[in-house]
Amino acid sequence: MRNTARLLIACPDQRGIVAAVAGFVAEHGGNLLDADQHTDKEHGEFFMRAAIEREGFGLDRNTFAAAWEPMARRFHMQWSIFWGQPLKRMAVLVSRQSHCLIDLLWRWKSNELDVELPLILGNHPDCADVARDARVPFEYCPVRPGDKARQEQQVLGLLADAKADFLVLARYMQILTPDFVRTMPNRIINIHHSFLPAFAGGSPYKAAYERGVKMIGATSHYVTDDLDAGPIIAQDTVPTSHRDTIDDMVRKGRDLERLVLARAVHLHVADKILVSNNKTVVFD
Amino acid sequence: MRNTARLLIACPDQRGIVAAVAGFVAEHGGNLLDADQHTDKEHGEFFMRAAIEREGFGLDRNTFAAAWEPMARRFHMQWSIFWGQPLKRMAVLVSRQSHCLIDLLWRWKSNELDVELPLILGNHPDCADVARDARVPFEYCPVRPGDKARQEQQVLGLLADAKADFLVLARYMQILTPDFVRTMPNRIINIHHSFLPAFAGGSPYKAAYERGVKMIGATSHYVTDDLDAGPIIAQDTVPTSHRDTIDDMVRKGRDLERLVLARAVHLHVADKILVSNNKTVVFD
Amino acid sequence: MRNTARLLIACPDQRGIVAAVAGFVAEHGGNLLDADQHTDKEHGEFFMRAAIEREGFGLDRNTFAAAWEPMARRFHMQWSIFWGQPLKRMAVLVSRQSHCLIDLLWRWKSNELDVELPLILGNHPDCADVARDARVPFEYCPVRPGDKARQEQQVLGLLADAKADFLVLARYMQILTPDFVRTMPNRIINIHHSFLPAFAGGSPYKAAYERGVKMIGATSHYVTDDLDAGPIIAQDTVPTSHRDTIDDMVRKGRDLERLVLARAVHLHVADKILVSNNKTVVFD
Amino acid sequence: MRNTARLLIACPDQRGIVAAVAGFVAEHGGNLLDADQHTDKEHGEFFMRAAIEREGFGLDRNTFAAAWEPMARRFHMQWSIFWGQPLKRMAVLVSRQSHCLIDLLWRWKSNELDVELPLILGNHPDCADVARDARVPFEYCPVRPGDKARQEQQVLGLLADAKADFLVLARYMQILTPDFVRTMPNRIINIHHSFLPAFAGGSPYKAAYERGVKMIGATSHYVTDDLDAGPIIAQDTVPTSHRDTIDDMVRKGRDLERLVLARAVHLHVADKILVSNNKTVVFD
Repeated sequence: MRNTARLLIACPDQRGIVAAVAGFVAEHGGNLLDADQHTDKEHGEFFMRAAIEREGFGLDRNTFAAAWEPMARRFHMQWSIFWGQPLKRMAVLVSRQSHCLIDLLWRWKSNELDVELPLILGNHPDCADVARDARVPFEYCPVRPGDKARQEQQVLGLLADAKADFLVLARYMQILTPDFVRTMPNRIINIHHSFLPAFAGGSPYKAAYERGVKMIGATSHYVTDDLDAGPIIAQDTVPTSHRDTIDDMVRKGRDLERLVLARAVHLHVADKILVSNNKTVVFD
Repeated sequence: MRNTARLLIACPDQRGIVAAVAGFVAEHGGNLLDADQHTDKEHGEFFMRAAIEREGFGLDRNTFAAAWEPMARRFHMQWSIFWGQPLKRMAVLVSRQSHCLIDLLWRWKSNELDVELPLILGNHPDCADVARDARVPFEYCPVRPGDKARQEQQVLGLLADAKADFLVLARYMQILTPDFVRTMPNRIINIHHSFLPAFAGGSPYKAAYERGVKMIGATSHYVTDDLDAGPIIAQDTVPTSHRDTIDDMVRKGRDLERLVLARAVHLHVADKILVSNNKTVVFD
Repeated sequence: MRNTARLLIACPDQRGIVAAVAGFVAEHGGNLLDADQHTDKEHGEFFMRAAIEREGFGLDRNTFAAAWEPMARRFHMQWSIFWGQPLKRMAVLVSRQSHCLIDLLWRWKSNELDVELPLILGNHPDCADVARDARVPFEYCPVRPGDKARQEQQVLGLLADAKADFLVLARYMQILTPDFVRTMPNRIINIHHSFLPAFAGGSPYKAAYERGVKMIGATSHYVTDDLDAGPIIAQDTVPTSHRDTIDDMVRKGRDLERLVLARAVHLHVADKILVSNNKTVVFD
Repeated sequence: MRNTARLLIACPDQRGIVAAVAGFVAEHGGNLLDADQHTDKEHGEFFMRAAIEREGFGLDRNTFAAAWEPMARRFHMQWSIFWGQPLKRMAVLVSRQSHCLIDLLWRWKSNELDVELPLILGNHPDCADVARDARVPFEYCPVRPGDKARQEQQVLGLLADAKADFLVLARYMQILTPDFVRTMPNRIINIHHSFLPAFAGGSPYKAAYERGVKMIGATSHYVTDDLDAGPIIAQDTVPTSHRDTIDDMVRKGRDLERLVLARAVHLHVADKILVSNNKTVVFD
């Protein structure tokens, strides 16, 4: 994956885009490894992810934009390219619970997650030990009553210092302000401990238990201003029964949360997600 | 299954209920094939399903109630017993779509569903052919504007004539009135084309599409006054992606609906469901 | 789907194929709706499915091959194109059990399966009624002991008369001879009532029951000379428990078989399957 | 769970067992919280798990056996009882891979697994760090060529010193000898990285990849003399596609392995598993 550039494109749908992109890549000696597309007929939008072998490709991070610009203008493209290296820098924001954090750390140590992990932040100190065992710097950023703005400034400063490219909320129990969210559009990944839009809000397992549902779920999504309503990246469900107490549901839910969050982070790291109209196109 | 009596019990939790019930059965020469229990600690309630081999059991439909009554009084039980035979009589109420009906008919013909099926009713005539091919009487009961009460009286009359024990709404698109629901408590089974409580209401696939969910679901539940909020019997989900159009979601949903409804009917027919506090205890 | 031509390509992997194909389509005024690719690095093979809007495309079934030939030669392509219309003609071969047949018929009648269905054949007469109710011709082709060759000739003759494009074995319990299979390579779809390669052979549910498995599965595959070892198209599993009798497993298995076979037929009809090295590439 | 005694019974099926057991418990002042049964009609065997509240129960670990003996003799029972406390003592045996071990450790630290964890053993030193971070003793027990017997003696000695009640093979890549297995019947839990019996043997993911399967699985089972053929406790599957490389399959498989092994350990710890005829009865 480190030897592959990923080009993401969104533009109004019209004929010839794939041919034009594929032709451009070929013209510069590149090998097109994958070229996923999707057309949203409802909105007349076209989405594409092109994976280009870097070896042999005549363009690099310094020269690509200039060469590509005419194409982008011709098709009114929004686009971005990621060169595989240097690796994306991931920061993780936690509260008290560690299960999602531990899971991410294990995947990172096992080379499943091809990222740098320069920083873990917590509004509680509970996960400091987990971070220390993993030899990742931990910063304690408590939220003092009535002063969330100050804490968010602290977090943003630390993220900037760590040069974090994206932020994973690994069961972070605070609501981020619109000001914070605005600084990292489609680069904050949350895990919601519920099958959204069912049981949006604070105590979904309790709500699910009281409703007597036969399955519970988890949802990973990008964070937007509208709480719990951001573009969904991944979801999954697991059966429950009347024998499950709320604690059992929480336990089953934790297993799901870990897997669903990891899947979302994986997709983000591989530049497989495009966002439009508050929905994701996921080229998996 | 036809040679097994099923006794369902709900009562305040206390010591010795299982022993008392099992002792009663043994005392009358019965063989206890299964004795599932569940204690709802939150509400202090006890639930039990006892399956008793009829062969050798000294009690029958005429003598059971009198013999059992002291036990029922001692533990303040709500109880019911079903003797395996004669079979339960199932009626099916449909609108235009036939997929759930066809599925139920096929299972019935394959001896998967151990019921009599004396009657299919429709507020549209569309499913008449399906019923005729299956050699089951079909009654057309249209809803005239402003006169739903009259149609429900017609349906109730036909159900009474057919001696129907329970009613399956196989994608019936009308809302039943509380008066109707009251006549068959916990004996009307609905399939909701959604993963309740997400997307409750009329066009869940459209809502799910617009929300960009990565899974859709279906929910089967008993019908209560509160639309879409009755006790859930069975649920399931299936993955979707950005490539799925609304039509694709509808198609995937239909497959789910058929399976989930069939599962719920199966459980009901085998007397494996107890209802309490608007939740089900399902001994599967 | 009827307005879309589907071009399937397999060739040795090299640079520039996507660009060349996309360029070809654009040059002839075509709109490339989808262009899925897959590179099998292990074998150095490239696979592509291009969906081309027929409206505006300057080539048709009469002119395409000549225009395309230079491209095919240049990249050493194996290729095929399907024009969306006329519809593919599906024949179904059954034995005694009807559940898969009924399911296919229902999907066909519901316009889920965009095919012509000119013929159902059975080596037993049991499904004749189902065929008649669906108004599809049924041919009874019994296998007389020691004379399977003759029956297969009869079947092949009827398939030819019906101009069948592909054949679905909907729980057909006879083994086809290599001679038969050779006439329809990658155009005979089977449903195996097991999670291959586990419990290949004749009584998989019994074998699964005796092994005490906690899940059973179903596998749909193209038929090859090597019994049950053809390229897998679709698989799925469902949980079981010690409470399931063999009959329960059969019943759960039937539900799976229907769904998995329908999924495979769907993919075949939409020209989404390529076969290589006895494996499928499925662009779903 | 610590306040609940669990009584497991297996005996020839006959009338009145539930009544007798429930009566015994009631007679000694016990509250029967759960009384799951299963009758294996094929072999005429009866299985039961009774969960008894310890508070109020007139028997304890010193007095139970004498009081119970007449019942056991009358019904020819094999039985065991576990008193909830002291906790079961779990040892874990690993090789190089740590993902299952890390998962078990996390669940143990999160109080999901109600066990003591006195010892981790490895035939490679790779997991020593993980054990140290978790503050659990680690013993390195290498297998020298031609001298497995000596290593197994070492392991058995360490298990005895640690008073281990059961042993979890968390991706242990050595085959245990029958002599070893015999010392802990139905108390060694293995995770097999495949969907048994498909792809039993050494490189299941490679085999699955080459067969082109669309799902992979994992199986947890008790270890018996017959390699990979012991009683299955839990299984699960996950979808794959042609896009998955062997590495992807291994990665997906690891996630499954962790979950399936944890589920099996959970069931064992809660005394919810009975074994008979090389199959499990799992009261979950």
